[in-house]
Parts: sequence; C-alpha cells; structure tokens
Amino acid sequence: MELAMIQGKIMPLDQVDPSWLDRGTYFGDGVYEVIRSYDGKLFALDDHLSRLKRSLEAIDIMSVNIDQVRRRVKTAYKTANIANAKVYLHVTRGTEIRDHTGGDDLKPNFFLTVTNLPDHSDQKTNGIAVCTYPDIRWKRCDIKSLNLLPNVLAKREAARQDCEEAIFIDDNGDITEGAGSAFFMVLAQEKKLVTRPLGPQILDSITRKVVIEIAPKVGLTVLEKALTPWQADWADELFLAVTTKDIVPVTHFDGEVIADGKSGKYTKLLIEEFQKEVRNRNTTAH
Amino acid sequence: MELAMIQGKIMPLDQVDPSWLDRGTYFGDGVYEVIRSYDGKLFALDDHLSRLKRSLEAIDIMSVNIDQVRRRVKTAYKTANIANAKVYLHVTRGTEIRDHTGGDDLKPNFFLTVTNLPDHSDQKTNGIAVCTYPDIRWKRCDIKSLNLLPNVLAKREAARQDCEEAIFIDDNGDITEGAGSAFFMVLAQEKKLVTRPLGPQILDSITRKVVIEIAPKVGLTVLEKALTPWQADWADELFLAVTTKDIVPVTHFDGEVIADGKSGKYTKLLIEEFQKEVRNRNTTAH
Repeated sequence: MELAMIQGKIMPLDQVDPSWLDRGTYFGDGVYEVIRSYDGKLFALDDHLSRLKRSLEAIDIMSVNIDQVRRRVKTAYKTANIANAKVYLHVTRGTEIRDHTGGDDLKPNFFLTVTNLPDHSDQKTNGIAVCTYPDIRWKRCDIKSLNLLPNVLAKREAARQDCEEAIFIDDNGDITEGAGSAFFMVLAQEKKLVTRPLGPQILDSITRKVVIEIAPKVGLTVLEKALTPWQADWADELFLAVTTKDIVPVTHFDGEVIADGKSGKYTKLLIEEFQKEVRNRNTTAH
Repeated sequence: MELAMIQGKIMPLDQVDPSWLDRGTYFGDGVYEVIRSYDGKLFALDDHLSRLKRSLEAIDIMSVNIDQVRRRVKTAYKTANIANAKVYLHVTRGTEIRDHTGGDDLKPNFFLTVTNLPDHSDQKTNGIAVCTYPDIRWKRCDIKSLNLLPNVLAKREAARQDCEEAIFIDDNGDITEGAGSAFFMVLAQEKKLVTRPLGPQILDSITRKVVIEIAPKVGLTVLEKALTPWQADWADELFLAVTTKDIVPVTHFDGEVIADGKSGKYTKLLIEEFQKEVRNRNTTAH
C-alpha cells in the first residue's frame, strides 16, 4: 500500500491533505511577493504584480492570471481592514506526487496572508547593525523564488551576532544585497548615493527603485556600482531598502561604527522624502 | 483581522491548516532523503540516515532524533509492504508565521511517503539521453536541501529536448553532476572510471559511493577528477548513478551518440556487480 507518514502518523497516500504535496515544499518551485500598505492603501501594487509576472515567466509557470491575483490581493486586503499591513503571497507550480519535471497541466497554488506590520520606528530612528555573509545563493537572485535557504542561514548567523540583517558578499568580494533588503551607501561630500546595479545576482527591489527615483529630490546623484565591505566601513551613511520598513539606517557594519553611529543626514532626508512619496501616491490613488 | 487566502478562499489566519505555514514551503528550509528497497529490504539505510544527519547539522536543525527517523522509516516501510519501494522523506525547521530567522524552539516537521518504484529496466538496458545545463545552483550542493528550483528548471529543459536527465556544467566548464544523479565516465582502454571528486558543489551520493566500492571488482580503477562535456562526448561509456535506478547507461550526450549508442561493456558489468552487492547486503541484513 502506498502511504504517507506525517510526523509519526501513517495514512494511505490518497488521504494526505494536498498541501503536503505542494511543489513549493518539495522543490521551492514557486515565487512570492511581499507588499505593504500605508494608511489603508497598498503601496506600489502594480510594480509588485509586474515583478511577480516576470518571476513566474522566468520559472515557466505560464498559466497565472495576474488580474486575478490583483483582485485577490485587493479583496483580501479590504477584508483584513488593516491600515498598515504586510501582504505576503506565493504561487507554486502545483500539487502532485513528487517528480522534478512537473506536469505541464498542473494548476498553480495560490497562498496569501495579510498580517499587521510590526512597528519599526525604533530601527528607523536609531538604525541597525548588519554583518556580512558569503553569497552562496544561486545565480538567479533576480527571480523572487521560494529557494531561500541561504537567506535563512545568513539571517540566523546575523542574529547570532546580534545583527538585524546579513549582507551578502560575492566571490569577487563585492556586496550584492541584504538577505532580505537592498543595500545603499551615501557619500555625503560627493552627494552620491551608491548601490549595486541590477543583474541576475540581485533582486529588482521595488523599494530600491523608489529610493533611486526620490534621491535627486534630496540632492543626491545615483551611482549604480558594486561596493566592497571596505568601502562600506568608510561610508558617511549606509542604509537598507525593504518593502516592510522602506528605509532603515545602518549604523554598524561588521562591528564597525559607521560615521558617528547615528542615522545620517541624507538617510533622514530620504526617509522623509519616501513618506512624501507615499502620501502623494495615496492621495492620487483611487 | 489577520487572514489567509488559499486559492481564492479567505479565512482567519489562526484557522489555516499548519501545513501551509511550513518553513519548507516559505524558504525550502529543510532537507530530504530518497531511499529505495530491493526485494523487501531497504538499501543503505544507515548511509542515508548519516547523510540526513549531516544535512540537518549543516542547516542548524539540531533537535532531530535520527534513531526516531530510523524507526519511522522502518515502520512506514513495513506497513507499506512494497518489495521495490521508493521512500521519500523530508524534515523542515518547523511551522510558524513567516520570518526568515526562525525561532530556536521550533518543532521540526517530518514527512515521508512510500511509493511503488516505476520499472526502469528499459532505461537500464537501452540507456538514456542527457543534455547539459548551466549549474546555476547555490554553493552548498553537498547539503541535500529542499532548494531545488534550479534542478526543476534543468529537468524541464531536458524534457523539452527529449532527454531523461540534465547534466550541470559549472562556471569553469566542468561537469558537476546530474540534476538528480551522479555522473560517471568509463575509459575502456585505460580501465578507468572517472567522476568528479566530492566537495561543496556536488552531493555525496550514496549510489556513487557504492559504484566506487565495486568498480575494482570489474577491473576499473577510480579516478576522481572533474570532466568537461568535450571529454564526455568522446568517452567509451557514460552512466548515471541514482538511488531509484542505481546505474543507468547514458547513450546520448547533448545530441552526440556515445560510442556505438548502446550500453557499454563496463556499464553492464557494473550493473551486474551492483545487483550482486544488493543481494549480498540483503542476505546479511537482519
């Protein structure tokens, strides 16, 4: 008799709840998005849905209707009725008895949660500590896939070092990005904002894109260039960009204090400018 | 209200079946094994359990009792009562609302299936076609983790090319291993069996280990050395080693016919010798 065992309990294979046979679990064969709302309005929803579409196409899941995803996100968010919410969603190739290749007629699985966003105001005011970790991830980090074990391992090591985030260093010794964030450096005198250019090694972060758009408004010129940990150590300001917290100052990098160990002038200006951008979009959104 | 949506159905977050909140799905935060039985006896169970232990330790899941896993495998296999079975099992870090780091007190999830092994005798007699695919995987392929999306993508591309398996090529242009198998070359005149040495880029395959052990019995000396696709094209014999099929001749490599396009002399001898090894172990097993 073909069977399954969950924890210690045996059951016939055909009586297993299908969620256990999701290709998301077997292979991480799916992609995800994290969207947030500010004051009752979802932020940059279309950007997130465009990226979801690109991720799905990159892993050859072609049968997802993005308009249906949009309706589902909006319905779920409206039902949750949480002003500042985190919307997580993933799509996997589907459910079947484990087989690498996967049938072409599988029905993708859709899963979403809407939860309260924790308060990050302390981090945004006082900054966080980060530490470096070797970038052992796969070569397509532009795909927002469910293969996140290296990110988990990096985050766990960071936590052991009392750091909030891990920053990946590639084989060339360059910074790629954070385990769950984009990474920025400010050169105050030169009025430059430096971040790694897009490519297969980093995610096309939506928050990164907004930061790059608003940087000129605070007087910064954007330079897309790879950075080394040595350059980061000597930066005037460092910060992370991530959907759930938008901009977070980095005050400690691998144990080194950055500048005076406080959130920098430009980082503060960018945080304010980001909030203006949010209010602006919320006012014009229907 | 915090909520979840599965496909299009909304429910309060606390009413979601925990299987949807498994870190295996969110992050591929777990490891797995595939074990087979021959004629009613599990093959190389201890080797698989040792590797499971190494994989778990490598990703910092420390609270799994391997003896309990052994008992579960044996109980499930006995209950299934399938002479030639495939036993798949995975262990994930546990279940919680999505957070990269993961609590240290999480209870790992255990999932196992016992299924009938398909008949692979045709492949073992007539051989298979394989094609190459860039090795875009992460840098710790020695850990048998649930992060298998690159393997899925490689297998899907292979299937499009009517190939049974994809062979990964690393950035140096060397063969690492198959998407779900170890890769071997035979140089008949030199009586050499060549395969890539173990390291972080390939799995410590149990079947590979058995093949290396039995090779001298058919007159082959083992050379652990990286191979290029060019060398594979010109080989006298190629084959794969994988738990579910043990040894499978490769007769076509990226569209090129290998030697006379049939299973080679040494490959046949190794298949026979492998069966002797199985019978030998089955006789002495209690």
